[in-house]
Amino acid sequence: MKNAVLSAVVLFAPMASFADPLPSWGNSDSKNRIVEFVEAVTDPSGSDYVTPAERIAVFDNDGTLWAEQPVYFQLTFAMDRLAELAEADPAILTTPTLEAAAKGDLQAVAEGGHDALIEVLNASHSGLSVEDFQASVADWLDTARHPDTDLPYDQMTYQPMVELLRYLRDEGFSTYIVSGGGLHFMRVFAEDAYGIPPEQVLGTYTATTYETGDGTPAIVKAPEIAFVDDKEGKPINIERTIGRRPILAGGNSDGDFAMLEWTTAGDGPRLGVLIHHTDAEREWAYDRESPIGKLVDGLDKGPDLGWVIVDMANDWNRIYTGSD
Amino acid sequence: MKNAVLSAVVLFAPMASFADPLPSWGNSDSKNRIVEFVEAVTDPSGSDYVTPAERIAVFDNDGTLWAEQPVYFQLTFAMDRLAELAEADPAILTTPTLEAAAKGDLQAVAEGGHDALIEVLNASHSGLSVEDFQASVADWLDTARHPDTDLPYDQMTYQPMVELLRYLRDEGFSTYIVSGGGLHFMRVFAEDAYGIPPEQVLGTYTATTYETGDGTPAIVKAPEIAFVDDKEGKPINIERTIGRRPILAGGNSDGDFAMLEWTTAGDGPRLGVLIHHTDAEREWAYDRESPIGKLVDGLDKGPDLGWVIVDMANDWNRIYTGSD
Repeated sequence: MKNAVLSAVVLFAPMASFADPLPSWGNSDSKNRIVEFVEAVTDPSGSDYVTPAERIAVFDNDGTLWAEQPVYFQLTFAMDRLAELAEADPAILTTPTLEAAAKGDLQAVAEGGHDALIEVLNASHSGLSVEDFQASVADWLDTARHPDTDLPYDQMTYQPMVELLRYLRDEGFSTYIVSGGGLHFMRVFAEDAYGIPPEQVLGTYTATTYETGDGTPAIVKAPEIAFVDDKEGKPINIERTIGRRPILAGGNSDGDFAMLEWTTAGDGPRLGVLIHHTDAEREWAYDRESPIGKLVDGLDKGPDLGWVIVDMANDWNRIYTGSD
Repeated sequence: MKNAVLSAVVLFAPMASFADPLPSWGNSDSKNRIVEFVEAVTDPSGSDYVTPAERIAVFDNDGTLWAEQPVYFQLTFAMDRLAELAEADPAILTTPTLEAAAKGDLQAVAEGGHDALIEVLNASHSGLSVEDFQASVADWLDTARHPDTDLPYDQMTYQPMVELLRYLRDEGFSTYIVSGGGLHFMRVFAEDAYGIPPEQVLGTYTATTYETGDGTPAIVKAPEIAFVDDKEGKPINIERTIGRRPILAGGNSDGDFAMLEWTTAGDGPRLGVLIHHTDAEREWAYDRESPIGKLVDGLDKGPDLGWVIVDMANDWNRIYTGSD
C-alpha cells in the first residue's frame, strides 16, 4: 500500500505540472500574462511572492463569468416569476409596468427605465423568506431556457472563466464574486457553477428583516434595495466584507472600473483582467454603445493601467460550459 | 528520514488524541456539553454529522472573547485618540462633549447618552482612510493599558475562548466574530489575538467612500454609521455576509439573543453558548442590571432553549490570555 502510494506520487506529480490548467484558452498574450502572474505570486523564491492568505481574486458575474444578453438573466427570472405569481393571484399586477412584465414585454419594462426595473424586482424578490426566495430561483434554473441558445441559464457560464477560477484556487487563491447582481440570486448557483461558496459571493442586496412571528425565526426580504454593488460600491463592498485589497480582479464593463482600479493600484504584483465581448458569432459583440455591459473607460484607460484585455473571439477556443 | 517520519506519526498521533484541547476550562457540564457537541457533528458515522463547509461558529466579541468593563475598550480608544488629535489641534474640540471626552471624563460622556457616544465615535473614527485608521488602532494597542489590570487590551482576551476557537478550527469549523464593535477596529487584532482573519470579522461599520482624489485610490471612513451589528442586526448580517446559518453561536448579553436564537432554531444539531460573568474576583460580576453587557432574556429563556450557560467563576480555571 505504502509503495503504491509512493509510486502514484512519483508517476503523477510530473504529469500534473505539464497539464494545461486553461485548455479552453487559446494560446494568446492574455493567457500567457495570466499564467505568468500566477506563477510569479506563487513562487516562494521570487520577489513577487504573495502568501496564500493575500491571494484574493474578485470577479464580476454578468458578462464576466456568464452571459448577460439580451438582458441580465436575473431580470428574466424576475419577469418569469411575476408571471407565475400572477397566475395564482392576478390582483398582484397593480400597475401597467407589472402587467407588461408578467406578459414578458421586455420593451415596455425597458422604456419605464430605472423605476420600472425596481418595481419589477420588488414585486418578484420581496415579501418572502430568503430560503423560499432561493427555492424559487432553483426551480427557475431547473426549467428556464435561454431564448437564443436554448441552454439552461446556469450552463451559459464561460468555460474559460470556470477553468480560471479552478486554476486560481488550485494555486492557493480565494476566488470571490463581486457583482451588481443579486446576492441571494447568485448564491443559488455559484457553488455548483463556479465552485464559489455562499460566503464568497458579494452582490447587490435587498434589506432583510429578522422575523420570529410564527415561532420559527426567519430572514425575510424587504422591498428595498439596501446596497448596490456596482461602480464605487464594488471596492467599498470588498473592503467591508473581505477586508483585504485583492491582487487580481476581473470584469467586463465600466461598472467594474473602480474594482479593477483599486485592485491594481495596490503595491506589489497586481492584475486586472477585462473581458471584451468581441464574438458576435459564438456570443455577442458589444462595448461602447451597449446599454448592458457598457465598456468605455476600461477600453480607453485599461491598457495604460496594465490590464489584460481579453478578446473573446480570439483568446477563447470555447465559450459556454453547457456547449462544446 | 521516511522511517523517522513514520515513527513520529505512530508515536504522536495517540498522544494528540488524548491531549485536552480546552485546558483552561475546568471539568464542568459546560465543557462536557461543548466537547460532546463537537464530537457529534464531526463523527462521519454518526447521525449528527455536519460537513466542514456547514460547520460555522459565530461569536460576539465584547464580553464573550475579551473583557468589556468598565467600558467597551473601543470607547477608551476613541477618547484616547481624541485627546491625541486635540493635542495637535485643540480646535477640533468643538463641543462640551468632545472636550470632556478628550479629558477622559467618562462620566460626562455617559451622561450625554447615545448622541454623545456617536459624537465621540465620529470625531475619532472618521475623515481618514481605513488604512490610516487601522494604523492608529495598532499604535494604541501597542501602548495603552487597562486601568484595572494594567494589561494591554489585546491581552485581555479570555484564554478559555481562545482555546475554544482553536479547538473548533482544528475540528474543521470556520470561526467568525459577529460583534456590535467596530469592524475596522476589530480587524486590527482579531488575527493575532484569535486566529480570525479579516474576512471572518463582522461588526458595526461606518459608511465608507471610494476616493481617487490625489491619484491614489483609497477607502475613506465617513462620519455616519451604516450598519449596527447588534440584536436582530446579527442574524441579518450573518445571513448577508456568510450566507449560511451557523450551527454554534456564543455570546454574553441580550444583544446576542437573536443570533443564538436563530442559530439554535435551525434543523439538526445546534449549540448556543452564553458566557455568564459571575467572577467578581478575577474579572467582573454583572448581568441583569448592568448598562454594559446586560443579560436578562438569555438567563430567562436560554436554559429552556438548550443553551449552555457558562459560569465563569466555576467553569474557567484561567481568565485572561495575558495573565496566568
